[in-house]
Amino acid sequence: MPMPSPKDPAIAAKAALDPANFALANCIRALSIDAVNAANSGHPGAPMGMADAAAVLFRNHLKFDAKHPDWPDRDRFVLSNGHASMLLYSLLHLTGYEDMTIEQIRNFRQWGAITAGHPEYGHAKGIETTTGPLGQGLATAVGMALAERRLAAEFGEDLVDHRTWVFVGDGCLQEGIGQEAASLAGHLGLGRLIVLYDDNSITIDGPTSVSFSEDVPARFAALGWHVQSCDGHDGMALDAAITAAKAETARPSLIAMKTVIGFGSPNKAGSYAVHGAPLGKDEAALTKAAIGWTHEPFAIPEDLLAQWREIGQRGARERAAWQARLAAKPADIRAEFERRLSGALPDGYEPALLAAREALFAQPKKAATRKASQMALEALAPALPEMIGGSADLTGSNLTRVAAVDSQYAREAPGRYIGYGVREFGMAAAMNGLNLHGGFIAYGGTFLVFSDYARNAIRLSALMGVGTIYVMTHDSIGLGEDGPTHQPIEHLASLRAIPNLTVLRPADTVETLEAWDIAIRNRHVPSLLALSRQDVPQLRLEAGDENLTAKGAYVIRQFGETRDVTLIATGTEVALAVEAAEALHADGLSVAVVSMPSWELFDAQSDAYRDEVLGTAPRIAIEAAGKFGWTRHVASEEDVIGMTGFGASAPIDRLYKEFGITKEAIVERAKALAGR
Amino acid sequence: MPMPSPKDPAIAAKAALDPANFALANCIRALSIDAVNAANSGHPGAPMGMADAAAVLFRNHLKFDAKHPDWPDRDRFVLSNGHASMLLYSLLHLTGYEDMTIEQIRNFRQWGAITAGHPEYGHAKGIETTTGPLGQGLATAVGMALAERRLAAEFGEDLVDHRTWVFVGDGCLQEGIGQEAASLAGHLGLGRLIVLYDDNSITIDGPTSVSFSEDVPARFAALGWHVQSCDGHDGMALDAAITAAKAETARPSLIAMKTVIGFGSPNKAGSYAVHGAPLGKDEAALTKAAIGWTHEPFAIPEDLLAQWREIGQRGARERAAWQARLAAKPADIRAEFERRLSGALPDGYEPALLAAREALFAQPKKAATRKASQMALEALAPALPEMIGGSADLTGSNLTRVAAVDSQYAREAPGRYIGYGVREFGMAAAMNGLNLHGGFIAYGGTFLVFSDYARNAIRLSALMGVGTIYVMTHDSIGLGEDGPTHQPIEHLASLRAIPNLTVLRPADTVETLEAWDIAIRNRHVPSLLALSRQDVPQLRLEAGDENLTAKGAYVIRQFGETRDVTLIATGTEVALAVEAAEALHADGLSVAVVSMPSWELFDAQSDAYRDEVLGTAPRIAIEAAGKFGWTRHVASEEDVIGMTGFGASAPIDRLYKEFGITKEAIVERAKALAGR
Repeated sequence: MPMPSPKDPAIAAKAALDPANFALANCIRALSIDAVNAANSGHPGAPMGMADAAAVLFRNHLKFDAKHPDWPDRDRFVLSNGHASMLLYSLLHLTGYEDMTIEQIRNFRQWGAITAGHPEYGHAKGIETTTGPLGQGLATAVGMALAERRLAAEFGEDLVDHRTWVFVGDGCLQEGIGQEAASLAGHLGLGRLIVLYDDNSITIDGPTSVSFSEDVPARFAALGWHVQSCDGHDGMALDAAITAAKAETARPSLIAMKTVIGFGSPNKAGSYAVHGAPLGKDEAALTKAAIGWTHEPFAIPEDLLAQWREIGQRGARERAAWQARLAAKPADIRAEFERRLSGALPDGYEPALLAAREALFAQPKKAATRKASQMALEALAPALPEMIGGSADLTGSNLTRVAAVDSQYAREAPGRYIGYGVREFGMAAAMNGLNLHGGFIAYGGTFLVFSDYARNAIRLSALMGVGTIYVMTHDSIGLGEDGPTHQPIEHLASLRAIPNLTVLRPADTVETLEAWDIAIRNRHVPSLLALSRQDVPQLRLEAGDENLTAKGAYVIRQFGETRDVTLIATGTEVALAVEAAEALHADGLSVAVVSMPSWELFDAQSDAYRDEVLGTAPRIAIEAAGKFGWTRHVASEEDVIGMTGFGASAPIDRLYKEFGITKEAIVERAKALAGR
Repeated sequence: MPMPSPKDPAIAAKAALDPANFALANCIRALSIDAVNAANSGHPGAPMGMADAAAVLFRNHLKFDAKHPDWPDRDRFVLSNGHASMLLYSLLHLTGYEDMTIEQIRNFRQWGAITAGHPEYGHAKGIETTTGPLGQGLATAVGMALAERRLAAEFGEDLVDHRTWVFVGDGCLQEGIGQEAASLAGHLGLGRLIVLYDDNSITIDGPTSVSFSEDVPARFAALGWHVQSCDGHDGMALDAAITAAKAETARPSLIAMKTVIGFGSPNKAGSYAVHGAPLGKDEAALTKAAIGWTHEPFAIPEDLLAQWREIGQRGARERAAWQARLAAKPADIRAEFERRLSGALPDGYEPALLAAREALFAQPKKAATRKASQMALEALAPALPEMIGGSADLTGSNLTRVAAVDSQYAREAPGRYIGYGVREFGMAAAMNGLNLHGGFIAYGGTFLVFSDYARNAIRLSALMGVGTIYVMTHDSIGLGEDGPTHQPIEHLASLRAIPNLTVLRPADTVETLEAWDIAIRNRHVPSLLALSRQDVPQLRLEAGDENLTAKGAYVIRQFGETRDVTLIATGTEVALAVEAAEALHADGLSVAVVSMPSWELFDAQSDAYRDEVLGTAPRIAIEAAGKFGWTRHVASEEDVIGMTGFGASAPIDRLYKEFGITKEAIVERAKALAGR
């Protein structure tokens, strides 16, 4: 069936530049218009504007096989401007991803559909990461590109040889995280990262001239990128630019595509009105006429659908060849490659863990938990080639670098340790990308207070169910002189409030090792380790293989036969609670000290276990942090020995004393509660 | 007393470029070395490297009068790389700020001293903003420059004619917020913003080549900045660059100063070892010898101190002239200028507020609270010329724009509405800067979920005690189809956990107006308004002048004489609680409904009032958000009708039903608690 010509002469002129591509792009435009109209909510403008570029990319360049969406060597495609979700859903449907049926497209933004307002990782194959919070798609894609390069270095380019493609809008480039990601990618010369910038001159508040007038190509050139500009509706020009970007291997590529948002809409194209609202029935009809689309809503003519399905199978042969190469590998290499991609831990892990435990019990150590973390890494990382570390420029403070993870990830060679620079948010998102790619367990460090900077990426780890490991040191006023800007107060509470995130605040070397074990095994839940600057004694001295931290809380000391009071503490305050309990016991009270390294893990235990640990005696909580939230475990915030405001700059001992986080304060409150 | 020559030939060569400036800079270096050594903690490297530039700036350019640090027309000096705090403290001491005594310098980083590890706003005059969290000083300074330009347009350049100077390090430029700020400043052509970049090629993890290799001058040029480079230890070159930067009025200026971190230290200069650790006694002695400093620790020779004190008085005549110009102004203009700077509200405010209240009671309205917020702004802003608004590119969603605050802040003319672009963090920090500058009440909007992006600037508002107003709309799953990336869950809890922040989630038009009244009056506490996308009925119908929201919580409905159960709700869920209470009452129960728009304000009430409101009957809390923290007010999280995980993409009614936030669920739990 021949395609009717576009009625609008300007559109017809664009269509004439590459009629085949234009026709394929119209399928995306039509589906996007129809789905947003049906949902009566959504963002039609961006899919309409980027449809031509998407068609070129999928037709001619993207390496994928729609029938095998988990093929490890597929190119990764990230829609960083996630509000354009219908672009992605259209592509997945058209190219024949099995779960992306026309019914799902019809149910765009409805309960239970896999076609959420913004692409949600895990909802459908082909959604490589959750996007919507702007800039993060780009930063996550940087992590994927980091992963590809490292994995290729480990297993060879005959197994790992793919690109990461990113569509970004103005918002992604206005967000600071976009800059962090672009700066890091330029620095490391990630030549297989190719970004297509939807330069449509429109944001929600109107023309970009309201807030954004920088020379984006010049900025990216300054960051060390390969930069091109082209007409985003000219299939031939797009193809040439993408081809040139692929040829450039030493630098990441930016293609700034001049596009018209809502391309095709006679009355709304080029306006913010088409960004986040349905076209409506009338304008949809006018638009379809203008672009030469004569089909029923949600209907794709057979010839075009056939072309798209062929595109979806374009990579089948390449995939088969890859599969053959994998099959031809020596069995041990193949097995290790498959293990790495599956996320299973190697056989050597368990012995390494047990040896590390035994060493701690054999020779107990007083150490800051950040140091204990480094000890745990020293012990475990040699058994885990998938671990890839880094820090947001605080390596010597976070103690995230160990012998096995010491090779610097550099432009020249992709090592196992990434200098993320002072870019906490970019680091967190990149770690998500490393984990999403497969083959890696990414961890990275900063100060706990700067979890603030990275917060929405931590949230996305949790929302996606990705096991990123956050190593957050200097976890209280215990950091001392750097003062209140660097002292976390509300952070533990605000992180515990995030669903599906495991926050761990270990008390000593043993709990820290156990926390790492939990984090490493948790490939579908992110873990955040809150670690101290200051030394703590080793409290766990009785040898045994059970990971008590995994229970979330347990009785670490019992003084006396019964309980007059229960002291619940976390991290560095467990030792303080033990001291207080000794003093109380000397005064004739029976006291249980509960170490509670993780609220979330404790919540997951049986009621019976929880009741047994917490007991029925009055309880006091001790934590050098804000009191908010502790009423989950104690009767009132008056029973919390903690902080009520911000910290201060002074040596640590003075701070604990001035803020009343002392043995004496615990003893006094305990006696009051116990009626002594 | 003649200055001894530096022993080190390379240093001597630098000194010879501008001997007078070098000698003054040495005072900063010596004090910084001594204070960090005495504290045995701190960052000597950056003050030593930037001392020459600071000396040039204070000697020849900065407009200030150390004896009148509150002079409104002073230049603002922001040390964005706040770890270099000893640079600032040295300058304040040397130029004669009264509170910055040598005792304070000696007590650097000690309890009770005003010389905290990082500069803390409010500790001492001359500290214009708290810095330390990197990049934020620059973004806050952009707000100050925005304020200067707007205030000059309102009151004339004979009263408002000053510059904003910022020292930044590599970290500030690696952080995304630094880019956001620079991009906005370039866009708006803030010609009176001058940034001196301490380009020392070192970050904590080692040389910047580990993580940072972009062409910074080229990046800033791409952002529309005026860019220069110079030797940061050559006083003459620095002076010339600063002079040229001042002459450029249409673009902000960046001066990239090539410096040596720890300049002068024979064994540590140019190394990360001097970034964040004391030189130690021996290296301090070697350094002093190398730079030709022969004085006792903390001692400044008389002649140099006299020169510095003269510098501190350099602006005295200019200030007197300014004072005379102010005095010569018509009384009403002078009074208004002084009122604006003092932060006092105008006489017209109270009548405007009362009229707005009366209008709501006269004609109750069903409206989304974001719409109610716009109505409040429409009513109040005409009386408050100091209000300056904006949004991070969500104006039409946040409803932050009103007739009185409609003029766009543009390059050509500084209006009252700022298009911050998709830069939530940069917006928040800029608002802090607008408020810190004086003369303005800054407010700005985004979606509540994206408070994540801005979080550390919200924290700094609270830490500094600055009354920034955050307008956060789409405050629950009630936003519907955009889905879980856009639906706040943990955000209310995580914001309530921040000390000194007032979180307000109003239930209807009246509470929203009251919330705005609280926020506007709170010039020393930041306020965050959580506002709905969806409509709610007006629940407050009884006319009266008392701001009930200011009590934090109050009984908004009472069904029956006694209480079988108390329903506590916030925001959009108050109407739901009222519906449930009606149903319960129909079934014979007595029920009180408590609206709790602000936990913080409720906490500040008397015990008697709190007990009266909460009552002794079983309580249920209803909030379409995570349950974390609610045990402060109810017995267990089982008594919270709220969210236990992330949201989903679907129409609003479906979401409330699927997540069990329904009248039926409330009724069921209430009956169970009341034993029915």
